[in-house]
Amino acid sequence: MIDAMTDYPAAYRDLLDAQVLTLATLEPDNQPQLSEVWFLHDEGEIRLSLNTSRRKAQNLTARPQCTALILDLANPARYLEVRGRARVEPDDDHAFAEKLHGKYGVDASAYDQPGDRRVVVTIEPTRIRPVDMSG
Amino acid sequence: MIDAMTDYPAAYRDLLDAQVLTLATLEPDNQPQLSEVWFLHDEGEIRLSLNTSRRKAQNLTARPQCTALILDLANPARYLEVRGRARVEPDDDHAFAEKLHGKYGVDASAYDQPGDRRVVVTIEPTRIRPVDMSG
Repeated sequence: MIDAMTDYPAAYRDLLDAQVLTLATLEPDNQPQLSEVWFLHDEGEIRLSLNTSRRKAQNLTARPQCTALILDLANPARYLEVRGRARVEPDDDHAFAEKLHGKYGVDASAYDQPGDRRVVVTIEPTRIRPVDMSG
Repeated sequence: MIDAMTDYPAAYRDLLDAQVLTLATLEPDNQPQLSEVWFLHDEGEIRLSLNTSRRKAQNLTARPQCTALILDLANPARYLEVRGRARVEPDDDHAFAEKLHGKYGVDASAYDQPGDRRVVVTIEPTRIRPVDMSG
């Protein structure tokens, strides 16, 4: 069954193959923290590979509320906003990082320091909002 | 005096003329709300023209903490993150909306309903973070 609130609309599926998304996490004082991140549309979900030393990974572990925006770079009046919660799971064997490698041709963990850990973050949508202001 | 935390870096000034920015506001439960908005680099500040009936305007009035991200559409590994607080001021005579009109050639208030009000939102930066991952 399709849930209009939490399913990705067919007319916006192309954006799930975009190169980056804008991720909003919450700092300890609830200030939004925004960054561009790589992602993979994997098993119907939006998934990220993060190094646990990064602020956004720490924010998501402490405060799972997060929102992603995927912009159509060719038409920035068109985008998909995905509000949800982050499910953070270990990726100690880098199985997911390697999947992401398949999309980008670059190893996301190449710059990790010894002792750094990888997690896979799945955004569990609570509301998906497609926007097209280009009329 | 230049303050590295709250001044726009010279190497990123081109982004202040971009067509859109991604704005993060906070919903009542602190879920980040993301949208693409028009803006003007005006008197050294990032300013928006919002209709007070819009959710983002209501969020900013209730919870001024907000963050903007301006993406280089030609190189999405390069962007400027601006964390700050929103100063919301009336624009009842549409003086600022008309300034914005000068940038876009479109009247931001053209679709306002009778009784709607306009505000000018100035983002007062607390931290400016330039990012370029394109190495």
